[in-house]
Amino acid sequence: MAKQQRTIITCAVTGAIHTPTMSDALPYTYDDIAAQAIAAAEAGASILHLHARDNETGAPSVNTDDFSPFLGRIKQATDAVVNISTGGSLTLSIQDRIKPAATFSAEMCSMNMGSMNFSFHPLAKRYGDDDWKFDWEKDYVANSDGNIFRNTFRDIREAAETLAPHDIKFEHECYDVGHLYNLKFCMDAGLFKAPVFIQFVMGILGGIGADIDNLVFMKKTADKLFGEDYRWSILAAGASQIPMATTASQMGGHVRVGLEDSLFISRGELAESNAQQVAKVRRVVEELGCQVASPDEAREILDLKGGDRVNF
Amino acid sequence: MAKQQRTIITCAVTGAIHTPTMSDALPYTYDDIAAQAIAAAEAGASILHLHARDNETGAPSVNTDDFSPFLGRIKQATDAVVNISTGGSLTLSIQDRIKPAATFSAEMCSMNMGSMNFSFHPLAKRYGDDDWKFDWEKDYVANSDGNIFRNTFRDIREAAETLAPHDIKFEHECYDVGHLYNLKFCMDAGLFKAPVFIQFVMGILGGIGADIDNLVFMKKTADKLFGEDYRWSILAAGASQIPMATTASQMGGHVRVGLEDSLFISRGELAESNAQQVAKVRRVVEELGCQVASPDEAREILDLKGGDRVNF
Amino acid sequence: MAKQQRTIITCAVTGAIHTPTMSDALPYTYDDIAAQAIAAAEAGASILHLHARDNETGAPSVNTDDFSPFLGRIKQATDAVVNISTGGSLTLSIQDRIKPAATFSAEMCSMNMGSMNFSFHPLAKRYGDDDWKFDWEKDYVANSDGNIFRNTFRDIREAAETLAPHDIKFEHECYDVGHLYNLKFCMDAGLFKAPVFIQFVMGILGGIGADIDNLVFMKKTADKLFGEDYRWSILAAGASQIPMATTASQMGGHVRVGLEDSLFISRGELAESNAQQVAKVRRVVEELGCQVASPDEAREILDLKGGDRVNF
Amino acid sequence: MAKQQRTIITCAVTGAIHTPTMSDALPYTYDDIAAQAIAAAEAGASILHLHARDNETGAPSVNTDDFSPFLGRIKQATDAVVNISTGGSLTLSIQDRIKPAATFSAEMCSMNMGSMNFSFHPLAKRYGDDDWKFDWEKDYVANSDGNIFRNTFRDIREAAETLAPHDIKFEHECYDVGHLYNLKFCMDAGLFKAPVFIQFVMGILGGIGADIDNLVFMKKTADKLFGEDYRWSILAAGASQIPMATTASQMGGHVRVGLEDSLFISRGELAESNAQQVAKVRRVVEELGCQVASPDEAREILDLKGGDRVNF
Ligand SMILES: [Zn+2]
Ligand SMILES: [Zn+2]
Ligand SMILES: [Zn+2]
Ligand SMILES: [Zn+2]
Repeated sequence: MAKQQRTIITCAVTGAIHTPTMSDALPYTYDDIAAQAIAAAEAGASILHLHARDNETGAPSVNTDDFSPFLGRIKQATDAVVNISTGGSLTLSIQDRIKPAATFSAEMCSMNMGSMNFSFHPLAKRYGDDDWKFDWEKDYVANSDGNIFRNTFRDIREAAETLAPHDIKFEHECYDVGHLYNLKFCMDAGLFKAPVFIQFVMGILGGIGADIDNLVFMKKTADKLFGEDYRWSILAAGASQIPMATTASQMGGHVRVGLEDSLFISRGELAESNAQQVAKVRRVVEELGCQVASPDEAREILDLKGGDRVNF
Repeated sequence: MAKQQRTIITCAVTGAIHTPTMSDALPYTYDDIAAQAIAAAEAGASILHLHARDNETGAPSVNTDDFSPFLGRIKQATDAVVNISTGGSLTLSIQDRIKPAATFSAEMCSMNMGSMNFSFHPLAKRYGDDDWKFDWEKDYVANSDGNIFRNTFRDIREAAETLAPHDIKFEHECYDVGHLYNLKFCMDAGLFKAPVFIQFVMGILGGIGADIDNLVFMKKTADKLFGEDYRWSILAAGASQIPMATTASQMGGHVRVGLEDSLFISRGELAESNAQQVAKVRRVVEELGCQVASPDEAREILDLKGGDRVNF
Repeated sequence: MAKQQRTIITCAVTGAIHTPTMSDALPYTYDDIAAQAIAAAEAGASILHLHARDNETGAPSVNTDDFSPFLGRIKQATDAVVNISTGGSLTLSIQDRIKPAATFSAEMCSMNMGSMNFSFHPLAKRYGDDDWKFDWEKDYVANSDGNIFRNTFRDIREAAETLAPHDIKFEHECYDVGHLYNLKFCMDAGLFKAPVFIQFVMGILGGIGADIDNLVFMKKTADKLFGEDYRWSILAAGASQIPMATTASQMGGHVRVGLEDSLFISRGELAESNAQQVAKVRRVVEELGCQVASPDEAREILDLKGGDRVNF
Repeated sequence: MAKQQRTIITCAVTGAIHTPTMSDALPYTYDDIAAQAIAAAEAGASILHLHARDNETGAPSVNTDDFSPFLGRIKQATDAVVNISTGGSLTLSIQDRIKPAATFSAEMCSMNMGSMNFSFHPLAKRYGDDDWKFDWEKDYVANSDGNIFRNTFRDIREAAETLAPHDIKFEHECYDVGHLYNLKFCMDAGLFKAPVFIQFVMGILGGIGADIDNLVFMKKTADKLFGEDYRWSILAAGASQIPMATTASQMGGHVRVGLEDSLFISRGELAESNAQQVAKVRRVVEELGCQVASPDEAREILDLKGGDRVNF
């Protein structure tokens, strides 16, 4: 089991689930993604988990051209670790999905540790046909009952081998107990080296639910499988985001917040920004006795290559 | 939580994972499937979980023509409940996969409660190129690292709605904690009615591992989500098949054995037949104080429509 | 499992473990106990768990004469529920220990659900011989390695039967898993009626440790044994007091703070008062989305007889 | 976590709870204790956990004179490890209770890791006033609702220090989660050295109940507290004795059976002898793939001083 000194706050700024209609605060232009990421870092996030979106429509994008405009500005303005998603599309191949991480040779990138249903179609019912800001949104949300978030064992191997020369640390997103076993299988096959960084993802329809029972069990399972060879964080979707992060911080875990994972600042109240969520979780975990990690402390805890070895 | 009176033994006779090379005992001809199913019933199995295979090559099949030859003979010779798989192919659509269950209007059919990696490629390394009995086997096994066992929320809805007129009871195969949440979501949407019958599937690469920690947690989660509205059984793949079944029987669970799930009778020793596994698990659970359910007791416990309402 | 509407904060004002030397804030005079209890109620505590002490020396007391001076003043100044300890002495008989609860016919009283070692002797090493404010303190602390907190099944029966006419609701203090089984045994014997109110006591040397694993397991066990027939709260001793209370509030539990259980407001920093702990836990649990119960809401949640039916 | 090679069967031959009235098979004469112990060893028990009783009345005894007559005969006839109880009386001091272990300098002795209620008074209702074989039995059983099994931290220290020169390995009987914490506290204080041997005692009224949830949690807690520094076994009282032992053996645990812990061979059927229970548990655990340890294998697993260094 990994003991932590400091609590790392990751902020997932925009993601690929929520759509512009759902919250005016959700950033999708290059400018807004950059600004909110920088503000999140200033509020205490030491890792910025980033997706790109189309600058005009807000549609999720894995084009490197949609990353460039904000990556440079974020690097210039903050020392935070940049973590680039490899999960930004449910239809594209693994090679397409890892291209941004490889192109920019980020310090970190995410990696979903299996295939699964990944659905948010119940959200569609909250909006009338005229409510949607952009054309793509309604179908994107409503049709997600047919979604499979795909990462076969072969895909994972391909991603690991392609990215190996970049010395990128993975944020292994584990949506269920079996994903931990998958990670163990891949480690035993030599694909990832210790310490691995595991993100327990809870509360997505298709994965494990978000409650403290499940968190305790995910951690127990990770202890059983990985011993001292892992670090971990929690991402709880929706209203339980900050409460679950608080409990995780008491168990020695790191925490992830951000508008990718929840649009809310408290039950029923939309967050104004990513930074507002970062500030809130920071305030609570510090009040309960944890101290927040700086970017360099995060680099040390996770054994990262350093912000000077990226390609942006 | 569901208390059991009697322990139901399901026997999964042949499945779609193992190949003829792996054990001479694995039945694939119509004759052998029928004979082993009947012997399993005589040994104490009250439910027979059945896949079809090509009569010549043993390749997995979802053709109704490959079911007919053995279904009638099994019905004639035993009173056991027939349960027809809907998971016999990783490439075909849900409509193709549920066709046998619908055609024969079985009392039960299986239903995988989500999508997942489903791999057995490590088995390929145990055999040399010349070891394989049939041409299809090697690639089938070796390429399973690219497999996704697909059942989106939309697929599940389609299957439930198509099969609703047949009053079929599902064996909800849950390979991970999230699959229980998926089932809960589907029950809340009205797709399945209580009591549901959940098969905890443990030890498949891609799903949750097979140990007692995981079994206890799966059951706790089911208690939390379903209260009194479920019955459950365990299927542990490989060498832990009978030991895990034994523990489950002590927890009030039903058990599944059969060559689909394990080719072994004890560690390192191949089973001679499905009936041998049934007899062994029966002997052990009875020695520890459980009593085995007859087919009619199984029908009562699971609230089945009855063996006279099938179409074969 | 019991769902809560509001979170009840209990404040345990002085107890019988800590001694005046350990913190200047620990109240022991009649005046200070009254003042701190009232301030705690004003800060948000709806239940006041009270022990008496000698007005001159601060030594724990179960004399009714040491309760009277503050009980009336507390009743006059607040509407909070008064809960009188039955555990204030490790040497006296159960009849002596329940006398204050019976004499004053309080709305609630505590009840330790078993016998156990109950030791705080390691604290003695923190003080030099000249540090102790009062003569009794050193031996009281240092000799606690020989302590048994005694409540046999016969003692529990005697207390339950003696107090039955007073319609007192018990705070069943459960220091370990077996104490839950003891409570179940006593409920089955008709000694206590649902809903029972269980205080999970964690982190006392002799009982279960204070961590989230243990909290989850205590609650799971209570769910298993009591179903809907219980309400629960947590008391974590020492530095984990407020963090554990925070997690419990997220699980639907009530919380107990106060200088009886911890002298600290954060790691290494002594609390200035009971009210300071109440205010802090209130602030955190409200920030995470819970609402604090008023005394009348607490009375409704726990099914109490009412503040007008006490004898002080 | 401790991996086992072989499964050690301990047989607890007579104990101090059951009385002669309850089963004709319960040995209490010197001859019968010797004969049943020897037969248990021949059936596969590699450790014999022994109490003495009065040769005439069967009343529990801690007199060394009541041990001598059978100890020598057991040593002569078997190579099994002798383990002498230190818990044979609820009224005598720790010094009296450890005297047999010290006098005979056994390879092992038991040690209850805390104080607790320890009651079997419900058994008294099963017998009419005229049913009792001996005068002492009825009160002994009926009054156990007032029992405290006493082992304060000071008692434990005294026992550990007194027995240290004898190089005795303790069977640390842990009846609840808190007892594991007590053991950890004592190990940190230097009283016991690794690997410690923990007996999880389940199903005694006053301690944790006997089910698989609790077993898994006890083991998880031991893993958390002791890492690789412990070996463990299970003792489940009453009808769950052999089923729980079976599950424990699958989890890497050792097992304890014997008439001290259960008078039954299956639900509702009295065992004919200790050896019958040993033979049954051996048959089941071997059928599920474990192998039983010989006395010398048990000595190696538990790091015992050897059968040639005892004083009888
Ligand atoms: Zn993402
Ligand atoms: Zn199948
Ligand atoms: Zn108290
Ligand atoms: Zn004993």
